[in-house]
Amino acid sequence: MSEPRRLWDKGEALDARIHRFTVGDDPALDRELLHWDCLGSAAHVRTLQRAGLLTADETASLLGELAAIDARARAGRFDISPEQEDCHTAIENHLAQRCGPAGQKVHTGRSRNDQVAAAMRLFMRHHALRFAAGLEALIAELLGRLAQDGGVRMPGYTHMQPAMPSSVGQWLHAHAEAALEQLRAVEDLLTRLDSCPLGTGAGFGVGLPLDREYTARLLGFARAQRSPIDVQNSRGRLETYFARVAADVAAIIEKLACDLLIYTGPPYGFFELPAALTTGSSIMPQKRNPDVLELMRGWAGRLRARVVELEWVRGKLPSSYHRDLQLTKAPTLQAAAGAQDLLEVGAAVMRELAVRKERLAAAMSDELYATDAAYALVRRGVPFREAYARIGEQVRAGVFRADAGARAGAAGLVDERVLSELRADVAEAAGQIARIRERVDAAEGALLNCG
Amino acid sequence: MSEPRRLWDKGEALDARIHRFTVGDDPALDRELLHWDCLGSAAHVRTLQRAGLLTADETASLLGELAAIDARARAGRFDISPEQEDCHTAIENHLAQRCGPAGQKVHTGRSRNDQVAAAMRLFMRHHALRFAAGLEALIAELLGRLAQDGGVRMPGYTHMQPAMPSSVGQWLHAHAEAALEQLRAVEDLLTRLDSCPLGTGAGFGVGLPLDREYTARLLGFARAQRSPIDVQNSRGRLETYFARVAADVAAIIEKLACDLLIYTGPPYGFFELPAALTTGSSIMPQKRNPDVLELMRGWAGRLRARVVELEWVRGKLPSSYHRDLQLTKAPTLQAAAGAQDLLEVGAAVMRELAVRKERLAAAMSDELYATDAAYALVRRGVPFREAYARIGEQVRAGVFRADAGARAGAAGLVDERVLSELRADVAEAAGQIARIRERVDAAEGALLNCG
Amino acid sequence: MSEPRRLWDKGEALDARIHRFTVGDDPALDRELLHWDCLGSAAHVRTLQRAGLLTADETASLLGELAAIDARARAGRFDISPEQEDCHTAIENHLAQRCGPAGQKVHTGRSRNDQVAAAMRLFMRHHALRFAAGLEALIAELLGRLAQDGGVRMPGYTHMQPAMPSSVGQWLHAHAEAALEQLRAVEDLLTRLDSCPLGTGAGFGVGLPLDREYTARLLGFARAQRSPIDVQNSRGRLETYFARVAADVAAIIEKLACDLLIYTGPPYGFFELPAALTTGSSIMPQKRNPDVLELMRGWAGRLRARVVELEWVRGKLPSSYHRDLQLTKAPTLQAAAGAQDLLEVGAAVMRELAVRKERLAAAMSDELYATDAAYALVRRGVPFREAYARIGEQVRAGVFRADAGARAGAAGLVDERVLSELRADVAEAAGQIARIRERVDAAEGALLNCG
Amino acid sequence: MSEPRRLWDKGEALDARIHRFTVGDDPALDRELLHWDCLGSAAHVRTLQRAGLLTADETASLLGELAAIDARARAGRFDISPEQEDCHTAIENHLAQRCGPAGQKVHTGRSRNDQVAAAMRLFMRHHALRFAAGLEALIAELLGRLAQDGGVRMPGYTHMQPAMPSSVGQWLHAHAEAALEQLRAVEDLLTRLDSCPLGTGAGFGVGLPLDREYTARLLGFARAQRSPIDVQNSRGRLETYFARVAADVAAIIEKLACDLLIYTGPPYGFFELPAALTTGSSIMPQKRNPDVLELMRGWAGRLRARVVELEWVRGKLPSSYHRDLQLTKAPTLQAAAGAQDLLEVGAAVMRELAVRKERLAAAMSDELYATDAAYALVRRGVPFREAYARIGEQVRAGVFRADAGARAGAAGLVDERVLSELRADVAEAAGQIARIRERVDAAEGALLNCG
Repeated sequence: MSEPRRLWDKGEALDARIHRFTVGDDPALDRELLHWDCLGSAAHVRTLQRAGLLTADETASLLGELAAIDARARAGRFDISPEQEDCHTAIENHLAQRCGPAGQKVHTGRSRNDQVAAAMRLFMRHHALRFAAGLEALIAELLGRLAQDGGVRMPGYTHMQPAMPSSVGQWLHAHAEAALEQLRAVEDLLTRLDSCPLGTGAGFGVGLPLDREYTARLLGFARAQRSPIDVQNSRGRLETYFARVAADVAAIIEKLACDLLIYTGPPYGFFELPAALTTGSSIMPQKRNPDVLELMRGWAGRLRARVVELEWVRGKLPSSYHRDLQLTKAPTLQAAAGAQDLLEVGAAVMRELAVRKERLAAAMSDELYATDAAYALVRRGVPFREAYARIGEQVRAGVFRADAGARAGAAGLVDERVLSELRADVAEAAGQIARIRERVDAAEGALLNCG
Repeated sequence: MSEPRRLWDKGEALDARIHRFTVGDDPALDRELLHWDCLGSAAHVRTLQRAGLLTADETASLLGELAAIDARARAGRFDISPEQEDCHTAIENHLAQRCGPAGQKVHTGRSRNDQVAAAMRLFMRHHALRFAAGLEALIAELLGRLAQDGGVRMPGYTHMQPAMPSSVGQWLHAHAEAALEQLRAVEDLLTRLDSCPLGTGAGFGVGLPLDREYTARLLGFARAQRSPIDVQNSRGRLETYFARVAADVAAIIEKLACDLLIYTGPPYGFFELPAALTTGSSIMPQKRNPDVLELMRGWAGRLRARVVELEWVRGKLPSSYHRDLQLTKAPTLQAAAGAQDLLEVGAAVMRELAVRKERLAAAMSDELYATDAAYALVRRGVPFREAYARIGEQVRAGVFRADAGARAGAAGLVDERVLSELRADVAEAAGQIARIRERVDAAEGALLNCG
Repeated sequence: MSEPRRLWDKGEALDARIHRFTVGDDPALDRELLHWDCLGSAAHVRTLQRAGLLTADETASLLGELAAIDARARAGRFDISPEQEDCHTAIENHLAQRCGPAGQKVHTGRSRNDQVAAAMRLFMRHHALRFAAGLEALIAELLGRLAQDGGVRMPGYTHMQPAMPSSVGQWLHAHAEAALEQLRAVEDLLTRLDSCPLGTGAGFGVGLPLDREYTARLLGFARAQRSPIDVQNSRGRLETYFARVAADVAAIIEKLACDLLIYTGPPYGFFELPAALTTGSSIMPQKRNPDVLELMRGWAGRLRARVVELEWVRGKLPSSYHRDLQLTKAPTLQAAAGAQDLLEVGAAVMRELAVRKERLAAAMSDELYATDAAYALVRRGVPFREAYARIGEQVRAGVFRADAGARAGAAGLVDERVLSELRADVAEAAGQIARIRERVDAAEGALLNCG
Repeated sequence: MSEPRRLWDKGEALDARIHRFTVGDDPALDRELLHWDCLGSAAHVRTLQRAGLLTADETASLLGELAAIDARARAGRFDISPEQEDCHTAIENHLAQRCGPAGQKVHTGRSRNDQVAAAMRLFMRHHALRFAAGLEALIAELLGRLAQDGGVRMPGYTHMQPAMPSSVGQWLHAHAEAALEQLRAVEDLLTRLDSCPLGTGAGFGVGLPLDREYTARLLGFARAQRSPIDVQNSRGRLETYFARVAADVAAIIEKLACDLLIYTGPPYGFFELPAALTTGSSIMPQKRNPDVLELMRGWAGRLRARVVELEWVRGKLPSSYHRDLQLTKAPTLQAAAGAQDLLEVGAAVMRELAVRKERLAAAMSDELYATDAAYALVRRGVPFREAYARIGEQVRAGVFRADAGARAGAAGLVDERVLSELRADVAEAAGQIARIRERVDAAEGALLNCG
């Protein structure tokens, strides 16, 4: 069994086939992680120095080389070969070649297990901060649009049937509130991610005097993650939280898209997409299709499936590290990229959309005012169930008409007080996140800058 | 088409068949919601009085009857018939019969849409608070057990292979940290639930001067939910968040169960379940089976599926209310009950478990100390990769022995400082939740108590 | 640990609490399974007699009592108490009480493991046959409606934009093909279910000379399931296949509902639901809502979640029986009931729908004929890409008009030849299923009829 | 709005950003589809010729160029640029450049909608046939191993507790049956895929006299897909079926992996993986880890998530084409590759595994024979429930011993008759698939070979 056997008819040796299977997509995926492993490694190197396990020269040499790797990685010129398996081995090999004995020491007091956890944690923190920026931009588009067109009246639908008077503002406001909720969710996510896994080794601690709080500070984390076993148990778990926020962000965009697919459709025509946001057909000469909206909707499902993927990979695993957890990388990276795309495209759609006021005005039919008419009776003392019945009869008889007062009233418009409260809440959430961003930027910026 | 046709071969009229389909499980499910609709209705009644739409007498009559309904519901003596469809109609009908014209007015300024949203919000808030209590109890069991058996040494496994020295304490600590994380997640959830949907009607506001902040205060909410459309859009969304916390709580219990299924299994035998926690076989006379642990594992999957169910029901819906949202009730109720069960049973398992110290001691093989031996060389100046290679050779040659110092050392034990930090964090999170609980209890307690 | 401890603050003994957890919903769910366990038990009893392990008198007594239990169960008068846990124990206890020593022997050569597998297999086979009947009825409605209204022209939409000329018939035809595909899927499912698990005991065979092929024949199965371990491994696996068919059936109904929610909506108005299929609003006097269609859509998501639930329960389990598998029952039963409901309601909707021909005619705009106009040029020798460009220009310039020939032509209509092929395929699939149904009915009908 | 605006801070024009979003991964993914589009295009070209819409020369020129593109694609030398969006445009552009006016005509009577459906159908058919080959190879390994080690006795576990005597053969047999079931599932899948979508245009038919049965025959399909709307409705639906088979194949491998993670683990040690199938640790010198088995388990979850992704993309879509369906490509391609990998690696594991007979023999404890001892009493006339109680007492008193006859008996071994039945069933299923493969190979082989 020791000599390589041939696999199937491909002439591939067993070891090579198995290597290919276990390595999987890592060489490609890990290009995204090079920067984060450089940062994590730099913090680890400094911690080793502090513990007297590296000299100042060794430290300077390693940090210098890590900065060089990082620069090459950013320029797309640091390759990870399939033999190296992943970014971590590629970097360690590189340091070993360039830094001599110091390179042999860089993995002291560290395991792939805490190292990968650190790189993923930094990756997710970075992208959570980007989600926040994207959400703030989306809210800005929604509120800017609201300031411009908020007062345009629009039918309110329930069950997709005309229900009550509403407005473009009330519709935009709803989406802005949902985006604010996600901004706060990003803040919660950042708190969950705010502890440093380094220094826990394979998952049972490290028998060397490493100052874990120092490492945490260097990387801009609020604290070291206390339990070494939980560092491993939290792999996949934190990724699930991250991917859920991505999926929830996508769900906002999905609802916008679902609304717009109806409202831009030919029989409604309340809004119109500019040409840059529509696509032609390969066969039908007359078509302009809202592919962008459909893909916004489709991507939301895709991101939900990433959450499911993460749940599946981590579910039913006993405590501590298992190789299954390698498979948490791909869905996490895809969730990050997907949510970011959706936020950008969603904001672009909200900015470029044309409001077709005449179509909206034409849709404000009398029946939308039936409930208000019943309330007018209530205000004159008629019990609601009786008022409801009376107006219902008028509608069924085709004689119900909305009165001009109702049409001119505030029903369905958004109150300025409500908007200023919303703006204050957005500012507060954005402010909290800005403080985390500053701490993170300061720490990350300093790490690779000197020896 | 107007006269009833027969459906299939069952002799059931079309109307009846369709009614049965649209009503679904509501009459049964809504038994859980009666209390919450009574509370929501009481707050609405008081708000109508404040707006001058109900007299003091009408108000007193309605509140008295709501309190009576609530008492009957708690005693299991308030029925919801299939004709009434749901708890809301059953209560409104009851008030109409008992309170005369006042009963006709109770639905003034309210829609099923905001009414159901309110009942579900109160239900979820209540159960989130129960999750917190269950998590605190679980943490107490884990830490109590840790105080007792934490110092017992236990092999640390990665890939289910012996890896490094660990301890019962380190294992328990990991689960306690995960439970703490969920305690904080419950707090986040409570914040997301902390706004009152009443007063938004069908989803576009109500044309009557209702003081929504007053209603919110009466129900113990921090604020009114600003956007009427978002009240409807948040149906299913908030339920998803709720069910995720339930599923995450279940995932903690699942991991405990997966660990214990291994560690109580015959070849390990590190822990033992008492007879009350095992089950016999219908065919094999010798069996004692860990059914409880297996069901703990199985239920975690079930609760994940409830999240998926909620995502499916709400996904791809345009804004505002659609009847699909009725289907968010069942998975939410099941998630609440399931997570509660798991917390109770999980805590019982952790309390009743016997630690078999001799089996654990016997499992502390030499190879677990290989990494520590490599680190001993590192401390003497050997670069890690070389130390790693040397010890590796000794292990493969079968000559590696752990030295007594390593066996007696602190590696794998939990530090008291770490535990006191953890206890402080638990106390802080529990304290925050206690403040919400007090506010909620005070508000809910006062609502039905007088006219 | 042996004396009962109190659980939480409920004053419930540990044993009782754990019993309640392990029993779960079984007493309620198992009402559906009583009939199937009676059948399985009857086949097992006859097999024991054939093996000389029961006398003729014992056999007669047991079969008589099983028939009596079955009759009571069908009348809703056979209770399963929580102490009995499930239908299997309830039946065995009942036999023990009524049949004396014979009752003590009924579980000879059987385990709960193969017994439950048998009951579930019979349950699923029965419901798969009902799905087939429901699908045949749905296809009948679709084709009946097609015969009546198939020639009515209707715009074909892609991306929900007007695309090409189509017809009511072409739309109905698509759904009929999807239903035919599911009819065939039911046939595949029946084949997968067509082996008998009895006689495999706990999962490693039974050390008694039971004639398993005889048992299989008695129950109307094509064969005994060969591998005892696979009998247990197939629990959850076969349920997943079953639930997928239910979910796929629901997906057909979902697509019908999604189409109709658009086509019955106010701006389209191509079809109309009769009053019996719409619902009013509690607040808006004018509303008639398509709740039935929305619930059809919502239920499809619910059934997809049942598949996910089954995948979660069985996923990552090692071979052989684990108690997790008990949790496969609930989603399977719900999938059966849900798909059946949807088929009935879906067929009712298709029968009751009114076609609004004038609205459809008005929607047949010129632009739908643009592609056909391009093809007319192609037929005259213009390369397609050039024809496409020319017509595109006319459309953009607003001068394109469909010619009368195109409007009168066969484009978008369904060919009679196509329909007769479809009818033949439906008849063939239905015929195959009818043969299985006859075999099953004959076997099941004979089993409890005598001693 | 017509001139490009800047998106965010990236200096990217709106059109470019939107183009990048709508194109997505297609240029990369579509490399896999080039071959299939060449085949589909060749069949379409020949059909156009038959309809008199292409001359013999044009046809020859187009077919020659398609063959050239295909050869370049197989050699990895046909690029798809992001501007071309997908393989279909890349090929059409290429033909337009090389074949002059004929290139302008190739899209006559075809839409992207039926064209993409055809390429995906051919892709899935090809990979379904590969799944079949992989399953046959896996079954061969299982049965080969069974022939060699099937008689080695092994404890049978339920609930992971020792239950009854079993054997290596009984364990292998179970997995072989599951693989046979999937082989049949592949056959069902091939039947569902066995119709040709070409000739249905955008989804409402094509107004040109194309002989669709001829196209179907050229591509080796049993028939043309009748309903044009259903061609589009089946996008995502057929992909879901395909991905389910991939996930079910993965579930077999998962169960093997879960079994082996237990049985190769240190306390059991029934089987051993050769070095080529284990991996070292970056920190612990002594470790050999079963990463391959863990990844086999993890991949099963990943493939289940691909099914969920497809369900999400297609769920709740109205009839006909929507751009969301583009997102069905990626999960389908990944499902194909993943299942194939798992089959190869799973078969390698089964072949390379070492059976440690002495460990298995040592695990055959007396208690495994308790049920057989009860049956011995039953055969002597003791009712089962009493025999069960008596043996149970002996076990609890620690005096139960298995007798030598029971240990030597056939309990838990696999019968040769059973295996020959299994082999016959495998041969039959493989034969059916071979017939489809021959038809497909003949058709595909002929298509590009001449003009």
